[in-house]
Amino acid sequence: MLGHRFATRINSFASGASDYWPSLTGKPSLAQMLQRAATVKGLTELDLNYPDHVGDDPAAVARMVHDCGLQVSGLAMRYYTNPAYKLGAFTNPDRAVRQEAIDLTKRGIDAARAMDAPMMTLWLGQDGYDYAFQCDYAALWQDEIDGIAEVAAHDPDCMISIEYKPNEPRAYSILCDAATTLLAIAEVGAANLGVTIDFAHSLYADEQPAFAAALVQRRSKLLGLHLNDGYAKRDDGLMVASVHEQATLELLREVHRGGFDGAIYFDTFPDASGLDPVAECAANIRTVRRMLGAVTQMAGDNRLADAQSRHDPVQAQEVARKALAAATTTD
Amino acid sequence: MLGHRFATRINSFASGASDYWPSLTGKPSLAQMLQRAATVKGLTELDLNYPDHVGDDPAAVARMVHDCGLQVSGLAMRYYTNPAYKLGAFTNPDRAVRQEAIDLTKRGIDAARAMDAPMMTLWLGQDGYDYAFQCDYAALWQDEIDGIAEVAAHDPDCMISIEYKPNEPRAYSILCDAATTLLAIAEVGAANLGVTIDFAHSLYADEQPAFAAALVQRRSKLLGLHLNDGYAKRDDGLMVASVHEQATLELLREVHRGGFDGAIYFDTFPDASGLDPVAECAANIRTVRRMLGAVTQMAGDNRLADAQSRHDPVQAQEVARKALAAATTTD
Amino acid sequence: MLGHRFATRINSFASGASDYWPSLTGKPSLAQMLQRAATVKGLTELDLNYPDHVGDDPAAVARMVHDCGLQVSGLAMRYYTNPAYKLGAFTNPDRAVRQEAIDLTKRGIDAARAMDAPMMTLWLGQDGYDYAFQCDYAALWQDEIDGIAEVAAHDPDCMISIEYKPNEPRAYSILCDAATTLLAIAEVGAANLGVTIDFAHSLYADEQPAFAAALVQRRSKLLGLHLNDGYAKRDDGLMVASVHEQATLELLREVHRGGFDGAIYFDTFPDASGLDPVAECAANIRTVRRMLGAVTQMAGDNRLADAQSRHDPVQAQEVARKALAAATTTD
Amino acid sequence: MLGHRFATRINSFASGASDYWPSLTGKPSLAQMLQRAATVKGLTELDLNYPDHVGDDPAAVARMVHDCGLQVSGLAMRYYTNPAYKLGAFTNPDRAVRQEAIDLTKRGIDAARAMDAPMMTLWLGQDGYDYAFQCDYAALWQDEIDGIAEVAAHDPDCMISIEYKPNEPRAYSILCDAATTLLAIAEVGAANLGVTIDFAHSLYADEQPAFAAALVQRRSKLLGLHLNDGYAKRDDGLMVASVHEQATLELLREVHRGGFDGAIYFDTFPDASGLDPVAECAANIRTVRRMLGAVTQMAGDNRLADAQSRHDPVQAQEVARKALAAATTTD
Repeated sequence: MLGHRFATRINSFASGASDYWPSLTGKPSLAQMLQRAATVKGLTELDLNYPDHVGDDPAAVARMVHDCGLQVSGLAMRYYTNPAYKLGAFTNPDRAVRQEAIDLTKRGIDAARAMDAPMMTLWLGQDGYDYAFQCDYAALWQDEIDGIAEVAAHDPDCMISIEYKPNEPRAYSILCDAATTLLAIAEVGAANLGVTIDFAHSLYADEQPAFAAALVQRRSKLLGLHLNDGYAKRDDGLMVASVHEQATLELLREVHRGGFDGAIYFDTFPDASGLDPVAECAANIRTVRRMLGAVTQMAGDNRLADAQSRHDPVQAQEVARKALAAATTTD
Repeated sequence: MLGHRFATRINSFASGASDYWPSLTGKPSLAQMLQRAATVKGLTELDLNYPDHVGDDPAAVARMVHDCGLQVSGLAMRYYTNPAYKLGAFTNPDRAVRQEAIDLTKRGIDAARAMDAPMMTLWLGQDGYDYAFQCDYAALWQDEIDGIAEVAAHDPDCMISIEYKPNEPRAYSILCDAATTLLAIAEVGAANLGVTIDFAHSLYADEQPAFAAALVQRRSKLLGLHLNDGYAKRDDGLMVASVHEQATLELLREVHRGGFDGAIYFDTFPDASGLDPVAECAANIRTVRRMLGAVTQMAGDNRLADAQSRHDPVQAQEVARKALAAATTTD
Repeated sequence: MLGHRFATRINSFASGASDYWPSLTGKPSLAQMLQRAATVKGLTELDLNYPDHVGDDPAAVARMVHDCGLQVSGLAMRYYTNPAYKLGAFTNPDRAVRQEAIDLTKRGIDAARAMDAPMMTLWLGQDGYDYAFQCDYAALWQDEIDGIAEVAAHDPDCMISIEYKPNEPRAYSILCDAATTLLAIAEVGAANLGVTIDFAHSLYADEQPAFAAALVQRRSKLLGLHLNDGYAKRDDGLMVASVHEQATLELLREVHRGGFDGAIYFDTFPDASGLDPVAECAANIRTVRRMLGAVTQMAGDNRLADAQSRHDPVQAQEVARKALAAATTTD
Repeated sequence: MLGHRFATRINSFASGASDYWPSLTGKPSLAQMLQRAATVKGLTELDLNYPDHVGDDPAAVARMVHDCGLQVSGLAMRYYTNPAYKLGAFTNPDRAVRQEAIDLTKRGIDAARAMDAPMMTLWLGQDGYDYAFQCDYAALWQDEIDGIAEVAAHDPDCMISIEYKPNEPRAYSILCDAATTLLAIAEVGAANLGVTIDFAHSLYADEQPAFAAALVQRRSKLLGLHLNDGYAKRDDGLMVASVHEQATLELLREVHRGGFDGAIYFDTFPDASGLDPVAECAANIRTVRRMLGAVTQMAGDNRLADAQSRHDPVQAQEVARKALAAATTTD
């Protein structure tokens, strides 16, 4: 049931490391960050990056997570091991590099299975272009489709979720928004493919996140939900609902109605400005619980359906605001 | 062949009306604007808005255009006749208003046929939403699909081209970018549907226009091409290539390679700041001819394909720049 | 005291005119819109546009407003009477047009005095440029400064408030944001000059509105406050706090601390999508009252100052959210 | 004279390191990057970051640069040495951290003098905020002003140039655009302060760069010019004129007219996507030389001044385009 599983970004827990581990020199270890993460009240699981966090013994890493009282909710690919990936992973101009990225992804899928967390998130951020005339777009798209098809076919029992983002690090990403991702998924046609919506990426792509969720749920599957917030101009990684409270609530209501019951993952960057990651994550969990309370309350309120039947924002927003305030004061 | 047909926005020719027609009181008539448009060297045709410019006797209007030595390249729907359309045309919450918009569109299609210009452009700018919680997105999308399906089925011999735009007048449009439009077209599944790319709308949607064209040409048909320019933050309606010269050239090359040979339509707003519309349109035609010269020159240059095989922007852009300069100095 | 005076956009009350005035053909008269506005509970005053709403007998118009139980809070210039203004009012390339715009503004100031509402808002939206190379920027800026200086000197007892906006109708406005406006005010150096912050314009200019208010209050005077909301990409004209609730609350707190006690004006566009303008305006008033309740509550809460002394957003936002929820449930 | 001095980002030359230095493990040394930079035809100087590139013996580093046949054009502060700077350098909430940042800057200024390159660029990217309610804006601004005042007073013979940027790494920077920076400089009032315009930052701040330059030249001094390009949505770091050719040309013409004769610095990121930094830098130099040729040609062309006297973009842009094409074909 939505709201029983909360995950977060393990690298957040490097924030303020020298204060938290006064004797530490250099970066904290994965084990240290896990132990710190485990102190967040309500946190149930973690996404780990592949290969960065997992290395060669996925089962051992999974045990380390379990020993902290947490679960692994899935893995997320990172294409940093070869500097050549900067020019593209599945769409690299060099066929050998493309294959290397695909093979790395397959090993990541194997690792996810070995960790009993059969869910791989693909953020293909390197696959894109920076300049007019830099690429032949038909070839670029075909390479992206072929790469996704090959990794999706590798293990039909592992879910593959594509996380889109419009820009950064490349000036233009190929899989830039929900609709483009759905076109790619339709071309590939594999049953284990779906979409991860990241709230701040969706704003960055000029989407209303709940509209994107409705489209994903109509044409494919929502496999991952990353909450955070920002100013729609870049991927700010702020706390949940710190800027767009109504839009966050609307998204939660939409995915709840669509039957999504996966982990809610906080893709926030407390480490970017040195915030206390434990307090920040705990605040996110409280915020989402409060909002899910409002979602429940709205479910029994006919005035929202009535307002929507007239496209009436005055009444619709009042229903949402009242539900949220009620959930906040009983918090 | 691309570059033999140039169309423009007839309402541009109201710009500076009191200087051009010193005795005029009020707005110029369609006939007056046509006569002024006909003075633009190289202009071959006009898009007219339905119902605004066409009224009840399409054949008579077509004759008026022909008498000026021009053609009608097609019609474009405008949903202004009923103020209720402000809340949506095909997606209006009121079923009767939805049907009225659909019926108006069918009459527009009939008018296009009667004018021997069987091409209707649908910019469904009113179909969208402004607020979180205002609409039920699943219902909104279904209404949009149903409306498009009904008008596409009305006359399979009239091409229906959907022109997308991300925002304005609504905060969020449903058909906001190329990919979302392609998803809608795939759902409807009618053979007479295709897409119009407007350069400034595409920038506004955070697309690289040539990438959007490649996607449209892969998954549907490019039926219309609107050139203009802007700063990617809104629909500025500036002269062709006045801001993004390389991106414009890339788009022309992409659609040329894809076999597009329709009219190039200038969706610019010289009237917004009182420019001379004849000089502005003539400049646009010269610009595009110059650019098509560059496209031809690049077609025989292996260095571009070579650069693209390496995703090398340094060489790729140099090829484009040299071709453009050569075409400019022989202009 | 802040929150005792509420103003709104009179043209909003043309929304849904044919439903509200079934026998009406054409647009509603000013008198009709005034009567409709007067039905909004809590509304105390109106801004009127000059010359559109005022014409030649300002005193008569003021009486008409008073007869509806409302006040005129000030006038706002509109430069539409001469189509040449499209290329600039105070910065028009034609010296005669510039002087015409300046003289029109002086008559507007006289009208404001005659209406006993000595406050003129200048939104110099036409003063800008669309293209690189179109203008000599030094001359453009000098013309803007000279125009402002001349109208400010016309009547030192009438306050002149400059409302900035980054883009639209021109691609680039000269007075595009708070800081640029403050530079212009510093150059002019007149005591009766100040700034109007429009929330959606401020977002559109990539400002955090409360930061802009702090800067204005440090370097000049805040003379006008326009509340509304939007998505920071354009001037959406949405209901207050419908998107950015925290940022709106922060702005209200900032101007309250800075001593602003003028009317709160709702620059929203219910007419753009056919909403009921009375319900929309009433909702805005309720929202602001609720928020001012939260501002009062926060004033006595040391935890906010404590959080800000550490730049701690977790605690700071919690204080704000709790205050808002408390004010909502007692609403 | 403008165009005789070209500088670039030394870290660019780490791009594709493993191909260029096959035996290298880890990152290239400063000496290695210098040697590689020295192979760029036309490059005359380098900006170095303080303290990263300079360390404790500035004179030795200067000799290393000279030995490669290059000059040091100045230093640029980087506030990364203390992780606490993530929450602010001059505006850190902790007074001790603020003073540490100020003292580090003074040592940087001393180093610049010791290197005979008395120019320090301050990009105060950490000074800002991420959330509504996070900071007291009046205190934040005062801290920024005080910090700048203290470092400017440290050595009146070292020029201090403030490089603004609207966002990133903080959601909002304090010194976000040209106008805000000019307000800060006016408050400080030190004669050795000025502004660095970075083309991509200026676009990111929704400025037309040449307009920003005109404002800077009117109210302060232009001390630094960073050329690059991007899509106005983020700091893309692309090659000069690869997206906005007309706007780049306009900026060069504006600073040339204003008498700027400093080094032109390329703040591009070829390393972000693995491009050859030598070819990329050489292309930027060729591009700027070509453009300065066009600037010279336009200087003697009365048609530009004539077009600008009418705000006529059709003629103005044609003059620019022809000048550019002529300079390209004789290239």
